[in-house]
Amino acid sequence: MDLIIRKYGGTSVGSIEKIKKIAQKTKYDIKNNKKILIVVSAMGNSTDELLEKANQISKSPNQRELDLLMSSGEIISSTLLSMALQEIGIQSKSLTGFQAGIDTNSTYGQAEIQSINNDRIINEIKKGNTLVIAGFQGFNENLEITTLGRGGSDTTAVAIAASLKASVCEIYTDVKGIYTADPRIVKNAKKLDFLAYEDMLELANFGAKMHPRSIELGMYYKIPLIIKSSNDQEEGTLVCNSNDIKNLINKGIIMNNITENRNRVSGVTSEGNISKITLKNIPDKPGIAAKVFEPLSVSGINVDVIVQNISNKNKTDLTFTIDDKDFDKTIKTLEKESLKIKYESIMSGKDYGKISIIGSGIQNAPGYAAKFFDTLSKINVNIEMITTSDIRITCLIKNEDLDKALLKVHEVFGLDK
Amino acid sequence: MDLIIRKYGGTSVGSIEKIKKIAQKTKYDIKNNKKILIVVSAMGNSTDELLEKANQISKSPNQRELDLLMSSGEIISSTLLSMALQEIGIQSKSLTGFQAGIDTNSTYGQAEIQSINNDRIINEIKKGNTLVIAGFQGFNENLEITTLGRGGSDTTAVAIAASLKASVCEIYTDVKGIYTADPRIVKNAKKLDFLAYEDMLELANFGAKMHPRSIELGMYYKIPLIIKSSNDQEEGTLVCNSNDIKNLINKGIIMNNITENRNRVSGVTSEGNISKITLKNIPDKPGIAAKVFEPLSVSGINVDVIVQNISNKNKTDLTFTIDDKDFDKTIKTLEKESLKIKYESIMSGKDYGKISIIGSGIQNAPGYAAKFFDTLSKINVNIEMITTSDIRITCLIKNEDLDKALLKVHEVFGLDK
Repeated sequence: MDLIIRKYGGTSVGSIEKIKKIAQKTKYDIKNNKKILIVVSAMGNSTDELLEKANQISKSPNQRELDLLMSSGEIISSTLLSMALQEIGIQSKSLTGFQAGIDTNSTYGQAEIQSINNDRIINEIKKGNTLVIAGFQGFNENLEITTLGRGGSDTTAVAIAASLKASVCEIYTDVKGIYTADPRIVKNAKKLDFLAYEDMLELANFGAKMHPRSIELGMYYKIPLIIKSSNDQEEGTLVCNSNDIKNLINKGIIMNNITENRNRVSGVTSEGNISKITLKNIPDKPGIAAKVFEPLSVSGINVDVIVQNISNKNKTDLTFTIDDKDFDKTIKTLEKESLKIKYESIMSGKDYGKISIIGSGIQNAPGYAAKFFDTLSKINVNIEMITTSDIRITCLIKNEDLDKALLKVHEVFGLDK
Repeated sequence: MDLIIRKYGGTSVGSIEKIKKIAQKTKYDIKNNKKILIVVSAMGNSTDELLEKANQISKSPNQRELDLLMSSGEIISSTLLSMALQEIGIQSKSLTGFQAGIDTNSTYGQAEIQSINNDRIINEIKKGNTLVIAGFQGFNENLEITTLGRGGSDTTAVAIAASLKASVCEIYTDVKGIYTADPRIVKNAKKLDFLAYEDMLELANFGAKMHPRSIELGMYYKIPLIIKSSNDQEEGTLVCNSNDIKNLINKGIIMNNITENRNRVSGVTSEGNISKITLKNIPDKPGIAAKVFEPLSVSGINVDVIVQNISNKNKTDLTFTIDDKDFDKTIKTLEKESLKIKYESIMSGKDYGKISIIGSGIQNAPGYAAKFFDTLSKINVNIEMITTSDIRITCLIKNEDLDKALLKVHEVFGLDK
């Protein structure tokens, strides 16, 4: 279907005036023969306000009730936008996640879309309705309302785009697109015109904070994503496979002649307040990792990077990182499990940070890693740990060095140009 | 089922503190072996706030969208109360109108319940859940969300009570019960201990403003209603058939030994700002009433009392009352239809008011009407028009005499004792 899916975030629908503005833009584009389907988040801070009410009642409110509560936010914004469209003569209807057939599993608060029964959506489009669908929500097999987690409206939008084979999914937000680094720290961070899906997965936190699952979905179903501001007419950031760009230009979906990103490094990311834990001399045999990480998982501790050294006399060191806030809980859990894990000692430190350079195929291209490490060395930043993936090289450094390193690396890789 | 249905109105669930208080009371009663199912309205002014948002977008927002929008208010309050119950150890679940199987017709904004598919409700009760059901809402055959009109949560509660053959439906509100007259005008109006359904239909506006359809439903399915305050422990007003009272006392559903109301007049009502319209000398033949009232209905004018005088030479006078606010529209509509209706002239006047005495079987009992008219005459209030029904005698008088008449009639019929 030659359909454009547009997702408007909470800030974009944050007031009645903004909702009216979106209706006007939609009308303009429909008059110019565009077919549009809209997915909305809840208005402004309303999700936080609902959450605050729940937290006044319980520190850990029942998740099934919480999902049902939260789903009301998107119902409110979708009905209001539909009314605004009808008010200016555009035939429209809002649909809840349930009415739109967004079938999910039962993991309340983090439900995953399992399928979209799009019969009703297609039917309503055929009737000439410009649909406004409540994002972030779905329903499970017991007709319980579920939510997809914070930012889940992005995933709703991309999933609907995939289900309807839409030509593009536009994500409207309060920033101009995706940046080479966090613009709050790196003042001369540049907005990227184009980005591969893989890089987007790593850079999603800069500028538009997109729901990671929405990017994975877009990548899997090859839905071009355009992240742009709802406040101005500027082109945003296009996320797609680079060999699809020409096709999108031909179809008129993107206007500018985006040249493929010559620089393999598309951005630099950093994240602070990380603790590093090392278990010294644990027995190097099958099942040992499970013995370490299962009790941590049960305690709700999120483990990030894991590095295991080469074995020495059937003993090995296991190092991993966690959030600083989980430090005490982690140490306590590990001490409780000491007889089972049989480590010799725990070495631990707080206040680390991660810095990463991101770029498709970066690891296979020579020179990037060396240039990265060299840059850190030249500004006297010590590297505590290194991990890599196909599209990312990450160094663990001291928290206090993080901003300095970020600015220098951003400059050295020419991202400010 | 030996079940108590409790409906809490908007003021009763108007804050997190009030919701917690309801949870505590529910827990106390459950520990004392009561089985309870709760129906809630939206919190405090939230319905008005949602309506205000819609009105900022459109003066006449699409009713289908409006119903979906409004339904979110009761979802919010029901989930919060369910969380509050769980927080203090009561197993609970909230259900939307859809999940509770509240099947309605498609008259958005004023939908009527057609049936309740109570499978899920019964199932959840069997699992040990104290249910909190979102009032005011249902769904139609196309899975669209509908609302039952202002005050509709009362109807939800009584309909569920009927469907589950509950032993009683308690309506919790911000007043102590039903009064002999509007306590804002008649300061010594008395709270009634007991009231027949029929009288309740007329007096529903005093104190607890109950949804009229909920009372009709209660009457039809013989569900005893208790209207009481959520702020104190006082007994409220019991509405049932008088021969069911003994039974209810035996079952422990009502505590006090309510003696059947000896006074046939259970209350006095008044309503101001009414216009009186008389069409002089219209042809007295079949179909003439339709010719008058159909165009008025199309214009959205609500006609109240209608009186037709005895025919004279095949001509008759037709008198009816409307709201003062519809006066201009009514005159304009009638003038437009003058050739069809063939009236000789229109006599009209604004600023009338209705005063009524209410009581089951009042019309068949001698003396009440005479005493009523005599009372008005003694205080020099002129009667413009009289209408009666089985349980009501109504006089149209001047607006300015309304309060004076109300106080005197209330006193003469001994309602302040």
